[in-house]
Amino acid sequence: MFASAELPQKLDKKDFRELEPKLRERLLTAQLEMIERKNFSVVILVDGLDGAGKGESIARLYGWMEARHLVCNAYSEPTEEARLHPPFWRYWRDLPAKGETAVVFGSWYQPILRDRIYGKLDDDGFQRALHQVRQFEEMLANENVLILKFWYVLPRDEQKKRLKAIEKKSAARHVLADWSTYKNRDKAAEVGEDIILATSKGYAPWFVIPSEDPEYRDASLAQTITQSIELKLADGEPREVAAPPVIGGLEKRSAVDAIDLTAKLDKKDYEERRQALQDKLSRISDTKAFAKRGMVLVFQGNDAAGKGGAIRRVIRPLDPRIYQVHPISAPSDEEKARPYLWRFWRRLPRRGHVAIFDRSWYERVLVERVEGFATHEEWLRAYDEINSFEAELIESGLIVCKFWLAISADEQLRRFKAREETAYKQHKITDDDWRNRLKWDQYAVAAGDMIDRTSTRIAPWTLISSESKHWARVQVLQTICDRLEEEL
Amino acid sequence: MFASAELPQKLDKKDFRELEPKLRERLLTAQLEMIERKNFSVVILVDGLDGAGKGESIARLYGWMEARHLVCNAYSEPTEEARLHPPFWRYWRDLPAKGETAVVFGSWYQPILRDRIYGKLDDDGFQRALHQVRQFEEMLANENVLILKFWYVLPRDEQKKRLKAIEKKSAARHVLADWSTYKNRDKAAEVGEDIILATSKGYAPWFVIPSEDPEYRDASLAQTITQSIELKLADGEPREVAAPPVIGGLEKRSAVDAIDLTAKLDKKDYEERRQALQDKLSRISDTKAFAKRGMVLVFQGNDAAGKGGAIRRVIRPLDPRIYQVHPISAPSDEEKARPYLWRFWRRLPRRGHVAIFDRSWYERVLVERVEGFATHEEWLRAYDEINSFEAELIESGLIVCKFWLAISADEQLRRFKAREETAYKQHKITDDDWRNRLKWDQYAVAAGDMIDRTSTRIAPWTLISSESKHWARVQVLQTICDRLEEEL
Repeated sequence: MFASAELPQKLDKKDFRELEPKLRERLLTAQLEMIERKNFSVVILVDGLDGAGKGESIARLYGWMEARHLVCNAYSEPTEEARLHPPFWRYWRDLPAKGETAVVFGSWYQPILRDRIYGKLDDDGFQRALHQVRQFEEMLANENVLILKFWYVLPRDEQKKRLKAIEKKSAARHVLADWSTYKNRDKAAEVGEDIILATSKGYAPWFVIPSEDPEYRDASLAQTITQSIELKLADGEPREVAAPPVIGGLEKRSAVDAIDLTAKLDKKDYEERRQALQDKLSRISDTKAFAKRGMVLVFQGNDAAGKGGAIRRVIRPLDPRIYQVHPISAPSDEEKARPYLWRFWRRLPRRGHVAIFDRSWYERVLVERVEGFATHEEWLRAYDEINSFEAELIESGLIVCKFWLAISADEQLRRFKAREETAYKQHKITDDDWRNRLKWDQYAVAAGDMIDRTSTRIAPWTLISSESKHWARVQVLQTICDRLEEEL
Repeated sequence: MFASAELPQKLDKKDFRELEPKLRERLLTAQLEMIERKNFSVVILVDGLDGAGKGESIARLYGWMEARHLVCNAYSEPTEEARLHPPFWRYWRDLPAKGETAVVFGSWYQPILRDRIYGKLDDDGFQRALHQVRQFEEMLANENVLILKFWYVLPRDEQKKRLKAIEKKSAARHVLADWSTYKNRDKAAEVGEDIILATSKGYAPWFVIPSEDPEYRDASLAQTITQSIELKLADGEPREVAAPPVIGGLEKRSAVDAIDLTAKLDKKDYEERRQALQDKLSRISDTKAFAKRGMVLVFQGNDAAGKGGAIRRVIRPLDPRIYQVHPISAPSDEEKARPYLWRFWRRLPRRGHVAIFDRSWYERVLVERVEGFATHEEWLRAYDEINSFEAELIESGLIVCKFWLAISADEQLRRFKAREETAYKQHKITDDDWRNRLKWDQYAVAAGDMIDRTSTRIAPWTLISSESKHWARVQVLQTICDRLEEEL
């Protein structure tokens, strides 16, 4: 869930100084327009790890926005007055009027997070609490409240360092270092993932804010708020809206960018390992245990990353009667006439079978997002839809593996050219491929968001360098064999 | 939940013959428009009690609609093929294309209903299953599927009669009498209520179809489908939409119409009982147990039904420091700028206090619906919002009583005239009152729907004849005292 969050996301001071006036101006313009129109309000939830600098971050936001139309509500233990009312009373009391923005510290998620971490909330109670929160936010969204939820994260070491620094100062100040989310970091990450999965809706999305670098943290907060207000202001207008406009100069380092592309495997090692893994796969897929389950393999990646080649190595050891490869391109007329996921439900494997998707439902948040085939609302809610979809597959006993095959832009160029020069490969390279290549950065952002939002505990992504095809193929086979051994 | 469903809803043959061509034409027109536009599909769920004639009802619908664009999918035990796939696979497989309509027998609710009734689904599993269904329907609705869910009901005796009749014939036919929902009627009603409460959303509402009279049953099914398609066709258009157009001649007998207005109480009995009840109320409201709880009283009813008088009798025995009466009229500017329920959250009582609402949040589905101040989408989702709201109040310890005070149209006229003639009562009668009176039938429909959809096990409505004010006041006091004794 938090794949990119653990990566160093930085913005150096000089870049920040250049970026800041642009960010401010655009944010303020959007806010003033919203104040004038008075047809929606904004609620900004600030949650996440202690020590991430949430307060500092919001202080900077105050400097950038029109502060007279910005109110900040911090909740901790309920006051006497609040305890004498139903739990949500205090949040209702403080709802901003249309045109106004409220920042919420210690939101309605805090009691759930805390009680779940400390075991005070059983499964049933946890589900009920999440349902109540969804009902609340759904109602607000229906009534024209723009809900933006931010989850601040920090790498473990950095969090420790910050908390120590706070502790040092705390003798002289009011702020106390709160070690609770540090001490329960793993449990908190797990509960956080469950909460985010259950409550990140198209109408009230979560955004993860990497907070190691304060400049990056605050700029990405401001950018997300700006984009969301701009999109809401455009609401009444026709369904154009492609990828949200990124303010130049602020790129998020995605999990995809962080893949180590130097990994290699020489021919001899490759042949040996490939053969051994294929034998293993052949054996496992022929067991009774596998016949009771089934498998879904998803291949995504850069164009020319070698999805086809990897898939051929996976199917070779399989009984042809039990697998089917589904290359996914544009939907048919029949498919276009039905809800998006229909095309994939109809291709699901029977029990004991294997369905291999060469591209998949993830195209919704990749090509459809970048090319504007899906509206902002459609691809934003697709993360949630996809997570539920995969949860259903897994619950029914299917084993799901998702692969992202990555190559560098240079390597892609080499492969494109090679394809053009080789007669029997020419069909594999089209004008579309060249066009998509021009949007390399946008695709990287989309892929990074996809991995952040859909790499879940039950259905994680496996990110593989395909700069060396040998390496990639062995990694794919290895991952599949490992998962099968683990599951069966 | 099913208040009006147990009432005899009839349409005599002659009226039906007159109504039928109008219904057919309008339904067919709507369907043809939808087929031509091809921008949404319709899924009609047919659930409810065995013996209600669901098959017969749909057969008639086939005769009325363009059957080439109508498909019927019946699910019972999953087939071999379906069992080899995830549970929702079969529903996905059969989703209709845009422009098409699918009727679903034995929908995704059936396994949940059955497993819950027979105890195979614990609280946690039940919550998860309902959540999965909501996710599924939310996604369909977002992808332009119009979901209409019908719950067929029958009075107990009638169900028994029908099942016996089916049993008699079954020797010669394929249909078998299924006594399961009869034998578990009470449990089924309870689980049905839970399911309907948890899954009746603005985007996928449940409609209860009283099925004792086949003509009424089928006409009301057709009418609801017609209205829903018409509203969906108008979707792109400006937010006018008042109460949905009712096809003349098909009136639902609502729980409100069934109130016995002859009940009376003579002056002496009244004084005695009132005094005794007020003494009791005074005593109970002064206890420690009450100080830990608190109470919310809701008064709705026909204009001039005597809400104010009843409220005065309730507050007289209460300590003035613990109660507040909130007359609800048009929202203030501050309130208009925030989500609808905000005005009521801010008026909630502290623990140990009493808030008395003279009109309430129910105005959303009464005056705002009838006068078109709320859009169809807004008042339709309000039932769900209100049920959740009241559940939160109750969960926090508040005791909620809701009163509907009813008078006949004649009695209202007498009281209006009396008010006009009495100097100190003239302020109580306005042009609005006379205007509302002209819409008596529409208000009765709205009140009936309100009671059907919001009279829940945890927060039932109390329907009281106020034709005799004495009677009404004593009933109100009695209900409050009974509830307090029960709760404390």
